[in-house]
Amino acid sequence: MPDRNHRVVLCRAIEGVPQPEDFRMTEAAVPEPAAGEFLVRHRYISLDPYQRPAIAGRYDGAPLGAGDMPPAETVGEVIRSRHAGFREGDWVRHIGGWQEYSVCDGERTFVVDARRAPLSAYLGVLGMPGLTAWASAVKLADVQAGQTALVSAAAGPVGATFGQIAIQRGARVVGIAGSEEKCRLVTEEFGFSACVNYKRPTYLQDLQRAVGEGADCYHDNVGGQMLVDALGVLKPYGTVVLCGLITQYNTPDAERQFSFNLGLPIMKRAVMKGLVVYDFEPQRQQFFDELAPLVAAGRIRFREDRVTGIERTGEHFARLMRGENVGKALVVLGED
Amino acid sequence: MPDRNHRVVLCRAIEGVPQPEDFRMTEAAVPEPAAGEFLVRHRYISLDPYQRPAIAGRYDGAPLGAGDMPPAETVGEVIRSRHAGFREGDWVRHIGGWQEYSVCDGERTFVVDARRAPLSAYLGVLGMPGLTAWASAVKLADVQAGQTALVSAAAGPVGATFGQIAIQRGARVVGIAGSEEKCRLVTEEFGFSACVNYKRPTYLQDLQRAVGEGADCYHDNVGGQMLVDALGVLKPYGTVVLCGLITQYNTPDAERQFSFNLGLPIMKRAVMKGLVVYDFEPQRQQFFDELAPLVAAGRIRFREDRVTGIERTGEHFARLMRGENVGKALVVLGED
Repeated sequence: MPDRNHRVVLCRAIEGVPQPEDFRMTEAAVPEPAAGEFLVRHRYISLDPYQRPAIAGRYDGAPLGAGDMPPAETVGEVIRSRHAGFREGDWVRHIGGWQEYSVCDGERTFVVDARRAPLSAYLGVLGMPGLTAWASAVKLADVQAGQTALVSAAAGPVGATFGQIAIQRGARVVGIAGSEEKCRLVTEEFGFSACVNYKRPTYLQDLQRAVGEGADCYHDNVGGQMLVDALGVLKPYGTVVLCGLITQYNTPDAERQFSFNLGLPIMKRAVMKGLVVYDFEPQRQQFFDELAPLVAAGRIRFREDRVTGIERTGEHFARLMRGENVGKALVVLGED
Repeated sequence: MPDRNHRVVLCRAIEGVPQPEDFRMTEAAVPEPAAGEFLVRHRYISLDPYQRPAIAGRYDGAPLGAGDMPPAETVGEVIRSRHAGFREGDWVRHIGGWQEYSVCDGERTFVVDARRAPLSAYLGVLGMPGLTAWASAVKLADVQAGQTALVSAAAGPVGATFGQIAIQRGARVVGIAGSEEKCRLVTEEFGFSACVNYKRPTYLQDLQRAVGEGADCYHDNVGGQMLVDALGVLKPYGTVVLCGLITQYNTPDAERQFSFNLGLPIMKRAVMKGLVVYDFEPQRQQFFDELAPLVAAGRIRFREDRVTGIERTGEHFARLMRGENVGKALVVLGED
């Protein structure tokens, strides 16, 4: 049995974009599972944009402060079990947090199978980001063959998976990303028809040219002006899936307002739909059964942005928040 | 044959809320129809909120300036025809403008039938406002029995008709209006279950109480904060039809932005749809055939806000823009 558990916690309440110095590592005894619980040694910690509003207390809890550990999905091995449903040696995904070990009672815990997919994929393309992308492309936008689909944050796990599902459905897909490197990844690795760098001064013309006759749907990971620009190239009656608000995550409450002329969606006859991934929990098996064979066959690809070592968690999260990650942000613990 | 035509034109380009002094009456010879044209003597001029952005040049044309006449639908009698499709004595609805007479070539002109409905109703409940309400309730929101429908500007012709169609479909309907008088009209005359006065300090609580378990759909005639407040009482997965932007119509371009936290529609999983009535031109006959018998039977009612005399057109439009009209704003010319 290991005896020390390292976790990463906040040094203070965070304002604005998180800095590596906002986090520190602490050490404590590895917890003991009580009856009905089991102990998990984490292999992968998933870092995701939603963790920023979670830190700010914008979901159900209070804002996190000094000493608090952010939530995160993890994949790890059950190393001690006092729970009838989980055995030592099982690999599980659950909300383990920013730490090396966690005790779990089996709530919202899924056994994962390394024979069907790489373990880390259960946090990305086959995990919550993948389910988000699938729900958007299949259930809300209902992308059809011959359509043009547009997606922002296209190099990230939601955007890349959304686009590749749309391609599988016969659509032409255009991505939006924040660097030339990301744009190359999106077209060369993920097979999008085009990817536009929104940091270029010619962005609006580039977007117009890439989209051509107009986008039938737009998956919005970003909000703000990027949504307005995407509405500008949406076809009449096109669908917009409102899903992520990266532009807002590091912004104080009072400024999380977005200036928007509603005349634009009216003129476009846009259909805008809000997406919250938790609604699709009942379809998780359907999603997995559809996507896992495509991932195994290499027809849907994924890229990961990894660091190794619990002590690098805060720094890696700050990098994600600056948009510098290329692919799914993961912290790897122990031997990969 | 009459010999003088009076029309109302702008004294100057209009900024902000129109004032009666922004308009003046001019006089000219009654025009002569050429071959393929006919002359119409207007009985009713329709005043509608969309005329404000039309004056500002926000549709297809340039902004109107000194001497320009605003557009308007009219109902009138053909008094001289050189057009094979229209006879003297026919009553027609067309875009006749703010004047007593117009020459028309038959484009976008409909013969109306006083035996099926009062002539003025062809500009309101059975005209463009009614078609807007029908498209929203039937085609976009698809209101169902047992649902709760919410509508702003509920005493106006779009809101009142939307609500009454929803009632016909078995929904419980809540209105929002800007005075106690309007709210009484909405509940007592139009049969809504409740109507909330947004000018009362207790508005938000009143709205919450009136809506109860949440609204399944909201028809938005207003935009701005009223949309935000309505989203607050929308049920998860509810539908919002974005249709009118009264809050913006008198606002300069730079300020027609609306501060909006997109987290709200995402959290609500709202489905927001833009509505432009012109898209439903092909369904106009279906709409008319459905609504005309209900109007004739008194099951869908309407209220008009009339003035008599072309010289009062500007003053009546300014009144509409201040929200002081109660019912469909009309100018009556000649004997009613």
